[in-house]
Amino acid sequence: MTPFVSEFIGTAVLLTLGDGVVANVVLAKTKGFSGGLTAITFGWSIAVFAGVLIAAKDSGAHLNPAVTLALAALHKLPWDQVPVYLAAQLLGAMAGALLVWLSYKQHFDETPDATTQLAVFCTAPSIRNATHNFITETIGTFIFMLAVLYIIPPSDSLGSLDALPVALIVLGIGLSLGGPTGYAINPARDLGPRIMHAILPIKNKRDSDWAYSWIPVIAPIIGALLAAYVYWLLH
Amino acid sequence: MTPFVSEFIGTAVLLTLGDGVVANVVLAKTKGFSGGLTAITFGWSIAVFAGVLIAAKDSGAHLNPAVTLALAALHKLPWDQVPVYLAAQLLGAMAGALLVWLSYKQHFDETPDATTQLAVFCTAPSIRNATHNFITETIGTFIFMLAVLYIIPPSDSLGSLDALPVALIVLGIGLSLGGPTGYAINPARDLGPRIMHAILPIKNKRDSDWAYSWIPVIAPIIGALLAAYVYWLLH
Amino acid sequence: MTPFVSEFIGTAVLLTLGDGVVANVVLAKTKGFSGGLTAITFGWSIAVFAGVLIAAKDSGAHLNPAVTLALAALHKLPWDQVPVYLAAQLLGAMAGALLVWLSYKQHFDETPDATTQLAVFCTAPSIRNATHNFITETIGTFIFMLAVLYIIPPSDSLGSLDALPVALIVLGIGLSLGGPTGYAINPARDLGPRIMHAILPIKNKRDSDWAYSWIPVIAPIIGALLAAYVYWLLH
Amino acid sequence: MTPFVSEFIGTAVLLTLGDGVVANVVLAKTKGFSGGLTAITFGWSIAVFAGVLIAAKDSGAHLNPAVTLALAALHKLPWDQVPVYLAAQLLGAMAGALLVWLSYKQHFDETPDATTQLAVFCTAPSIRNATHNFITETIGTFIFMLAVLYIIPPSDSLGSLDALPVALIVLGIGLSLGGPTGYAINPARDLGPRIMHAILPIKNKRDSDWAYSWIPVIAPIIGALLAAYVYWLLH
Repeated sequence: MTPFVSEFIGTAVLLTLGDGVVANVVLAKTKGFSGGLTAITFGWSIAVFAGVLIAAKDSGAHLNPAVTLALAALHKLPWDQVPVYLAAQLLGAMAGALLVWLSYKQHFDETPDATTQLAVFCTAPSIRNATHNFITETIGTFIFMLAVLYIIPPSDSLGSLDALPVALIVLGIGLSLGGPTGYAINPARDLGPRIMHAILPIKNKRDSDWAYSWIPVIAPIIGALLAAYVYWLLH
Repeated sequence: MTPFVSEFIGTAVLLTLGDGVVANVVLAKTKGFSGGLTAITFGWSIAVFAGVLIAAKDSGAHLNPAVTLALAALHKLPWDQVPVYLAAQLLGAMAGALLVWLSYKQHFDETPDATTQLAVFCTAPSIRNATHNFITETIGTFIFMLAVLYIIPPSDSLGSLDALPVALIVLGIGLSLGGPTGYAINPARDLGPRIMHAILPIKNKRDSDWAYSWIPVIAPIIGALLAAYVYWLLH
Repeated sequence: MTPFVSEFIGTAVLLTLGDGVVANVVLAKTKGFSGGLTAITFGWSIAVFAGVLIAAKDSGAHLNPAVTLALAALHKLPWDQVPVYLAAQLLGAMAGALLVWLSYKQHFDETPDATTQLAVFCTAPSIRNATHNFITETIGTFIFMLAVLYIIPPSDSLGSLDALPVALIVLGIGLSLGGPTGYAINPARDLGPRIMHAILPIKNKRDSDWAYSWIPVIAPIIGALLAAYVYWLLH
Repeated sequence: MTPFVSEFIGTAVLLTLGDGVVANVVLAKTKGFSGGLTAITFGWSIAVFAGVLIAAKDSGAHLNPAVTLALAALHKLPWDQVPVYLAAQLLGAMAGALLVWLSYKQHFDETPDATTQLAVFCTAPSIRNATHNFITETIGTFIFMLAVLYIIPPSDSLGSLDALPVALIVLGIGLSLGGPTGYAINPARDLGPRIMHAILPIKNKRDSDWAYSWIPVIAPIIGALLAAYVYWLLH
């Protein structure tokens, strides 16, 4: 696979499983209704595991524009590859959101609250305040990216289990720093599905909350670049 | 072990632990009553782990007719082996369901709702609609099979932990795409226990919902073949 | 360490963490009160992980008389070592139960229901019936032991992660087959703490339910020997 | 990184994710409110995983004064390094608590109960009694340290998964022995954030419960030294 195809498919699987677990927990009449924090954070963790194991070999499995930019800043990815990665990630995230909508179509129809519908696609803060929400997303992505930069490969490849450390880190970010804003920590994860929410003919849907949309795009990029800078200072 | 015996025992253990966790969560007066989505999805994940570690060496641990057909389509299994695998998987699934019934006999007797009894054996949709249920099962198995095809073995065998990636993928499918139909994603997993439900002398049982039974058989096969086709296109 | 010391310490840690999680979930005023099935089964799983990583090198980490007898039957342990293992396991289990009582002393005192107190130490059936309880414990231990016999070591040692497969199997047995009887699947795990319950000066305690005590001793032994026999037939 | 920087950053990440999950579960209006024992213990486990993977290479990832002292007692760390480690751990824990407060600032403001606010920073007993709380923390750290001393490295490095065994042990300690006192098992984890609670301008805060503060400092040290002594006796 080319890097574009690899990032596209990896991010599509990431979002299918990631937005999927939110759908299962929040939409009406699903088998996972009210599964709670544990279900959502494990679901997103395995979403990362699956996406990374698919895309690891051919593109390094960034699946996240903030990661791509941080790695480019550290000269671990040529800058001319950045637009390719970002486009693939955004389109992949949109494709994943589409598969979630197709899988849960009836449950979207049966969910009366339009804000709950939107929550399947993209993040929203528990308490809306641009400054604090921005700080939380920045810190969350900073810790995520810092830990990712310290992940050490094994002496011999563990095969697909090489994807486990990053999946565990994302589990931890969700459990520990996801409380205020729902841990976007990935601009494509938030923007791609938000665009799909705007496009798709969802029954009784609300607006796509564009007023908030810049925070889960900009803050993760700042947080990841900060982590790259700290890492560069120390090594 | 011959491939037949290997698939039979592996699938029997898969269903003993898989249908077992459903029994623990839904039947009356069990210690796990109301354990919820997390318990069920982890239970099925470990069921896969146990079945795969038993059958990996002698048959490749398909434990799933959709996997067997997809691998045959990709020329990774000779077609003349397919009937052997499918028969072993169906019979193994029936044997596993029998062990669950024996283990939980008193709790089946104490469960007044016959639809709950049936739910231990086989899947049923949250909102019944052949088209949408078919789409959901197809997408779920597509993502499952696609990820499985990308699982890369380690440089040196991790022993039984080689079974962990597929177990984690199944955890993710359950958490994320199991909401509408209960993620059969395996024709034997659904049909074998359904046949046992029809045969066994369960107290106060209902009919085995044959009207729905074709969906968790046909849709997983379509989904797995689609994944094999996409994988073949890309490699 | 001698095999005796190794089995003693390993089983003591197994029971400290195993009975400990039950104490946390069922006793009054603990931080884990009502943690439910997921907490209990993960707690026991990690208990196995910790016990096995301690005892693996010096005694093979049986920590369970049923495992010791099944391995002796398969000529994987000399019969003259069996009494040494069994004595160490029983005494270790008693020591673990003592540490749990010391850790949760105040919470035992605050728990008015004497049957709840007893549940921290040893298993009791959800629905009492000797025949069915015996069948359930036999099947549970059969599946446990069968899977354990199929655990394959890695090409190169994973160090302490070598203990993970058996810990995951025990997680699965608890989630899937623990519903009716609480999955003793280990005579020492049940009998040792039951003896401690009889000995310790627990406030307001009830009798130690000796009428039930033979089932979690005999049935696991039968189940493990059955698994050894099936394994021997197949290999 | 120098050992000081390594322990500082590792402990800061440990506390960011560790105190973070408590914030998510107990503070008002978070997405993880009432996530319960499973969420908290998994959150702390991944906190250990992340901290250890960052600090493993340059300082051995103690992240805990009790571990540092036990290893020094076993001559696995020169005594003149001990003050360096302890200072880094305490300052790192304070830094982590600061990041949690910044991330959850609005939720602290919205939480009326000042004891709940304090619980994000440091531990408190369920039933206050110096003797029993001391015993519980000593036993918890004894079992933790004993298991840690038995962790065996793999033949070839698993890379970041080398951090998994200790993370699983901490999961088990939390599930099984965390019920009475909240498993500090680490003086820096408790004292550093408690100092931050005293310093930070938290709205409506209470006193920092200094009367209890010596127990989660002294008892873990005693427990870890006891484990080192038992280990030394046996080897």
